Amino acid sequence: MAVSLQRPKGTQDTLPKDTHRWQAVEGIARSVAHSFGFREIRTPMFEETGLYVRSVGDTSDVVTKEMYTVSSSGDKTFTLRPEGTAGVVRAMLENGVMNEGFPQKVYYILPCFRHEKPQAGRLREFHQFGVEMFGSSSPYADAEIILLAGSLLKSLGITEVKLNLNSIGCRECRRDYHRALVEYFSEYKDRLCPTCLERLDKNPMRLLDCKSPVCQEIGRGAPLITDYLCGDCREHFTALTGLLDDAGVEYVLNPRIVRGLDYYTRTVFEFISDSIGAQGTICGGGRYDGLVSELGGQPTPALGFGAGIERLILAMTDKSPVFGEPPLVDVYLAPMTDSARSLSLKLCLELRALGLRAEYDILSRGVKAQLKYANKIGARFVIVLGESELEDGAAALKNMETGEERRVSLGDIAASCREEAGKYRSL
Amino acid sequence: MAVSLQRPKGTQDTLPKDTHRWQAVEGIARSVAHSFGFREIRTPMFEETGLYVRSVGDTSDVVTKEMYTVSSSGDKTFTLRPEGTAGVVRAMLENGVMNEGFPQKVYYILPCFRHEKPQAGRLREFHQFGVEMFGSSSPYADAEIILLAGSLLKSLGITEVKLNLNSIGCRECRRDYHRALVEYFSEYKDRLCPTCLERLDKNPMRLLDCKSPVCQEIGRGAPLITDYLCGDCREHFTALTGLLDDAGVEYVLNPRIVRGLDYYTRTVFEFISDSIGAQGTICGGGRYDGLVSELGGQPTPALGFGAGIERLILAMTDKSPVFGEPPLVDVYLAPMTDSARSLSLKLCLELRALGLRAEYDILSRGVKAQLKYANKIGARFVIVLGESELEDGAAALKNMETGEERRVSLGDIAASCREEAGKYRSL
Repeated sequence: MAVSLQRPKGTQDTLPKDTHRWQAVEGIARSVAHSFGFREIRTPMFEETGLYVRSVGDTSDVVTKEMYTVSSSGDKTFTLRPEGTAGVVRAMLENGVMNEGFPQKVYYILPCFRHEKPQAGRLREFHQFGVEMFGSSSPYADAEIILLAGSLLKSLGITEVKLNLNSIGCRECRRDYHRALVEYFSEYKDRLCPTCLERLDKNPMRLLDCKSPVCQEIGRGAPLITDYLCGDCREHFTALTGLLDDAGVEYVLNPRIVRGLDYYTRTVFEFISDSIGAQGTICGGGRYDGLVSELGGQPTPALGFGAGIERLILAMTDKSPVFGEPPLVDVYLAPMTDSARSLSLKLCLELRALGLRAEYDILSRGVKAQLKYANKIGARFVIVLGESELEDGAAALKNMETGEERRVSLGDIAASCREEAGKYRSL
Repeated sequence: MAVSLQRPKGTQDTLPKDTHRWQAVEGIARSVAHSFGFREIRTPMFEETGLYVRSVGDTSDVVTKEMYTVSSSGDKTFTLRPEGTAGVVRAMLENGVMNEGFPQKVYYILPCFRHEKPQAGRLREFHQFGVEMFGSSSPYADAEIILLAGSLLKSLGITEVKLNLNSIGCRECRRDYHRALVEYFSEYKDRLCPTCLERLDKNPMRLLDCKSPVCQEIGRGAPLITDYLCGDCREHFTALTGLLDDAGVEYVLNPRIVRGLDYYTRTVFEFISDSIGAQGTICGGGRYDGLVSELGGQPTPALGFGAGIERLILAMTDKSPVFGEPPLVDVYLAPMTDSARSLSLKLCLELRALGLRAEYDILSRGVKAQLKYANKIGARFVIVLGESELEDGAAALKNMETGEERRVSLGDIAASCREEAGKYRSL
């Protein structure tokens, strides 16, 4: 069978020279989540298709067009996770975590899959950092989630973002609003795009975030949800904006923010960046008070957000100090003879046991080629080991950055290297 | 549509109370790999099916029975990654990393999928830590890979394991050996299991690791690969065992170790544990010098190993110090009034900005319920904030472990908490 040697369209490889960036972003996301008292949860890569139909909604693009189906010989079919929330709710319910007291606060870092048209910043396999909180209907909970998202962006050095905030109310306020929207948009039926026409009856709010310029133009005159909020929803939203004002958080009220998934209620928000192009939302979320009961649990207030890791990395500058360096090698041993190579093996083990990153030549190359390689892997120190070094029981530890050399005994080479490495990184 | 609320058979949820174990194991695997000079690579969750047929082999169980197929509307079909090596080789070739000089040393931590019969220690979605090295045909490279695997197990505190070592030779030695095996087993055709009968002509070495007691009994008299190694393969193996002896590594020579995948050549090894039951292999690998050219690259010596993370965790005791603690909360603020709650929001932000893990009540609960919750989340310090504390501008910082209290000013509460937390963890 011919092998094309190409990754599937819309997917990415992350190469060794870049992976430390992902590690850095994930590490920061984890510690920000921990600082807010969230703990990690992991769920399977695929779930029963019905879970997503039920949660994400059967009119959403995700369910109607973008699902990846997984099957194996003679078994049911499943769907590759298109987003994180539904699986988390399923796992929390199935494992009884929802009975262990509230609030429950979890986060996740996981791949998601949507069969979209590949374009800049939009992959078919992408990665999401997300958090979910269950059990609090208080505006304080909304504030926590928004503050967590803000802290994450700040910790990553992403400052060119604006928090866009909206309330899409509860099922009750939305009923009237939907009616008003249908009435308004129906007057423009001849100019709406086919997708909007199709959504008009089932999910008219989605017309507000259509990307077609004509629909956008029409949408500008549409009724605003904020004029249709019921008393409770209005009060909730006012309390939330009060808390954000108090905490000095800047935001813009944006009634066009409706989010693509059907399960949201009340608060929705997006952090929008100007720097990463048209797909400017790098983080978004909101409240979804109806989802847990929709999936068979007790009615449970819930909220969360998700941030695409690819977009976060895109929004960070290439020179971001957050990225740090790839794990460079501390010590490279350059053996010039077979017995020196055999000794190098053992010395490397000693060095590594002390937490150092150590390599030696395993290609039987000449010393010149070895030094070139040592340079390429960013080795901080090099020790050349030849006949005379073995006879003397001592060698030169060369600092490749400064060119300085220090004579060290082979007997305590590990301790000497550790001392030197301790000067530039914690061990 | 009914939602069964069950995860797919053969998959697992990792709940918040357990995730820190995974984080610990992954963190250690990363730093051991870094200490050997390996860097992380990440590849897509699925690849073209042909990649696995070509690499893993079309007679392997993995390809014949266990593949998960991924499809979406109107697109080609792909296969969920059943193992890590093939995708890594594809990525290294497609992105030109193989042209950037040798050795290339990479590792990965990723989910794999095989539609096997679910049983203890065998999941359909499992997770693998693996390393691959490209470009060295030296026995020193084999030694490095085995030492890395050994260091990983040691760092995880997994000591009840035996290194089983074998050489399955190159294509040339295997030709004669296969012939001898077919000749030997053909005499027992009436007693062999159906799977073995089927494999007899195509891949007779797999008969040596059949689990049927009858086939095992027959296999005990079969010819040994070690008697069929060509001069070069024998020399390579002798050099490797010499290096391991030199480094003080214990191993047993086990001619039954053949590995399930077709691409191995020369050195193969498994670390086998007695403590995790019948599926005792917790880590295995070897050399696969033919795979890179099989997938369209230049002929390139290569080798690596994989370790199942579920099995590693299973082999560690529940009380392993490696697991550490879940990320417990440092400070819990217990507001008793609305204005105290509003202050708590701001104080928590200050605490978190200093790297502390801080929570406050967002459920408007009474102080008794709050303290119960603080206890449940493992909060180290609690500060109750009522009317009088706000008036005084000071509150008691209570150490929940010792019961000690310290009066702190609300103005520098964050600094005081940081000082206290600094006594038990690094910040």
